[in-house]
Amino acid sequence: MMRNIALMQSRVTALGATLRPHVKTSKCIEVGRLQRDAGARGITVSTLKEADAFFAAGFDDITYAVGIAPQKLDRVLALRRAGCRLTVLVDSLAGAQAVVDKGRTDQHAFDVLIEVDTDGHRSGVGPDDDLLIDIGEILRQGGATLAGVLTHAGSSYGLSTPAALQAMAEQERAGCVRAATRLRAAGLPCPVVSVGSTPTALSAQSLDGVTEVRAGVYVFFDLVMANVGVCAPQDIALSVLTTVIGHQPDKGWAITDAGWMAMSRDRGTQAQQRDYGYGAVCDAAGTLLDDLVVSGANQEHGIVARRDGTADPDIVRRFPVGTRLRILPNHACATATQFDAYHVRDADGTTQVWHRFHGW
Amino acid sequence: MMRNIALMQSRVTALGATLRPHVKTSKCIEVGRLQRDAGARGITVSTLKEADAFFAAGFDDITYAVGIAPQKLDRVLALRRAGCRLTVLVDSLAGAQAVVDKGRTDQHAFDVLIEVDTDGHRSGVGPDDDLLIDIGEILRQGGATLAGVLTHAGSSYGLSTPAALQAMAEQERAGCVRAATRLRAAGLPCPVVSVGSTPTALSAQSLDGVTEVRAGVYVFFDLVMANVGVCAPQDIALSVLTTVIGHQPDKGWAITDAGWMAMSRDRGTQAQQRDYGYGAVCDAAGTLLDDLVVSGANQEHGIVARRDGTADPDIVRRFPVGTRLRILPNHACATATQFDAYHVRDADGTTQVWHRFHGW
Repeated sequence: MMRNIALMQSRVTALGATLRPHVKTSKCIEVGRLQRDAGARGITVSTLKEADAFFAAGFDDITYAVGIAPQKLDRVLALRRAGCRLTVLVDSLAGAQAVVDKGRTDQHAFDVLIEVDTDGHRSGVGPDDDLLIDIGEILRQGGATLAGVLTHAGSSYGLSTPAALQAMAEQERAGCVRAATRLRAAGLPCPVVSVGSTPTALSAQSLDGVTEVRAGVYVFFDLVMANVGVCAPQDIALSVLTTVIGHQPDKGWAITDAGWMAMSRDRGTQAQQRDYGYGAVCDAAGTLLDDLVVSGANQEHGIVARRDGTADPDIVRRFPVGTRLRILPNHACATATQFDAYHVRDADGTTQVWHRFHGW
Repeated sequence: MMRNIALMQSRVTALGATLRPHVKTSKCIEVGRLQRDAGARGITVSTLKEADAFFAAGFDDITYAVGIAPQKLDRVLALRRAGCRLTVLVDSLAGAQAVVDKGRTDQHAFDVLIEVDTDGHRSGVGPDDDLLIDIGEILRQGGATLAGVLTHAGSSYGLSTPAALQAMAEQERAGCVRAATRLRAAGLPCPVVSVGSTPTALSAQSLDGVTEVRAGVYVFFDLVMANVGVCAPQDIALSVLTTVIGHQPDKGWAITDAGWMAMSRDRGTQAQQRDYGYGAVCDAAGTLLDDLVVSGANQEHGIVARRDGTADPDIVRRFPVGTRLRILPNHACATATQFDAYHVRDADGTTQVWHRFHGW
């Protein structure tokens, strides 16, 4: 994890932007502090629960990077009035109007980013859409503080070659800078130009015009990211420790007590070049056992079997009942949320327990 | 939920068995009490955390229906010595030996069930396998209390016709009774004959020779169970309340704040006759909007779109920013665990908050 934190920080710094880590992956104060100590400026959150918890721990520069629901503005206002510089996100006239209306009612100027769609992935306004300027005007005229533009090239998760990733990073950068340029040309302020996803952040060749990068999953990495090509399985800093509880010798199965409740139902590697089932298998020391995967999972049962589908005739002797294994996750954000704490191993082998949040 | 509880209880009672609900679905004391009040006898758990919590709330007859890891026997012993009749499960000589060894070391006779495999789904010993008797002998000679046999026809989740479900229920019953008969013929005790899964429990025509039925997901039901055919979508007692936060009008998408973190990554309906994406869509009052599904999900974003893939040109007017919707889950166990509490609606519209556990 420390290597992953240093890697992302050095890449973003080298390209002249600041890093605002997305804490949705870890939901853990101690991890956020390590990212800050490494040079991060501010954090990104996916829920107001994360904002509450990190603000209580002294993080006061927070971007809530999910389009704001009008019903959440009371909680946003409470955090802001308590001293948290919490910025919200809109991508519609209705969203902007709701923020403006709440600001008028409560005599408050919210900090607002406009979400820009640079890859057709999900949310946001096209960089060349007239709507972008219209939203900016509603915010300015309504007394909100237009903080800038934000984009997330989530479709980068579907790529797997350096050339495609570099092209997507450039598309994300150029689209977001284009939106900022148009707002400024219309006489609107746009101090923040925020881009990011782990794959594009690690692939960008230039961040010209970008002020900050957001990324989350890099802190742990996972098998999806290994398939994308931005890490190796050995870089994955999160694993689930499990125990063999039985076998089906004829099928070559070892049954473990890490099912989908532990690994999550995420099957993000299913459509990728290498399908890891519900996770990659390591011995207790963390050495990858590359012939195996978690081929199936029920709520509290995992099936460890050969990746090629053949039956290992030696499965019982190889992994007797009681054997400990470590499973690497498809998707770190999804697996981590199944647990209330991390057991953090230091270089000297000592273990600390770090709490993580759950819920909204 | 009250209807679902009454339905299962009446079906099992009518066939002459007792019901031991699996609390892994709700992980909620209040729900367990309602099942007990309706006639349930004892509970089934999937984790020792559930056992701890339910025992602390006065439930003292608990079956831990996951093959025991030797490392967990200390926690089991502590619960038993505190007065909890906690029964463990084995399906191997090594597992049985571990229980026997622990019992010798600590001068304790554990209650042990042998897991029987009646459908090739996952764990267990074949009803006609010599191993069954060998395990029974190890337990008896080692001083453990052989409590009986237990099976779970998990492959019933893959069926969808009454005839196939009835046949699987009979296969589950007959296989488990056969195992009990063989143990008894070998001079071993077998007081408990425990079968169950929600689909087979609701499809069984006979439970002759069975003493108890275990079932879990029926308490809420879900879209997977609707596809199996043992409930209707209108019977589903669990939903996620979400808010529209934006749109992609050209694509006919409404974007909500219920992504996979809220719904879970479970895509259990993907391979079934009707694929509900990440969930079925209802209005805030719970009326099914049958043309829609949650067609995609990111961590905190859901995409509501037409099930047939066409774009609804009216999506913005139909569901303005701020609109509340309810999403029915593919898999109740997976969705519920994403939350720390239930907001329980009474018939009169009042709401209570019931806590649920998380973790192990």
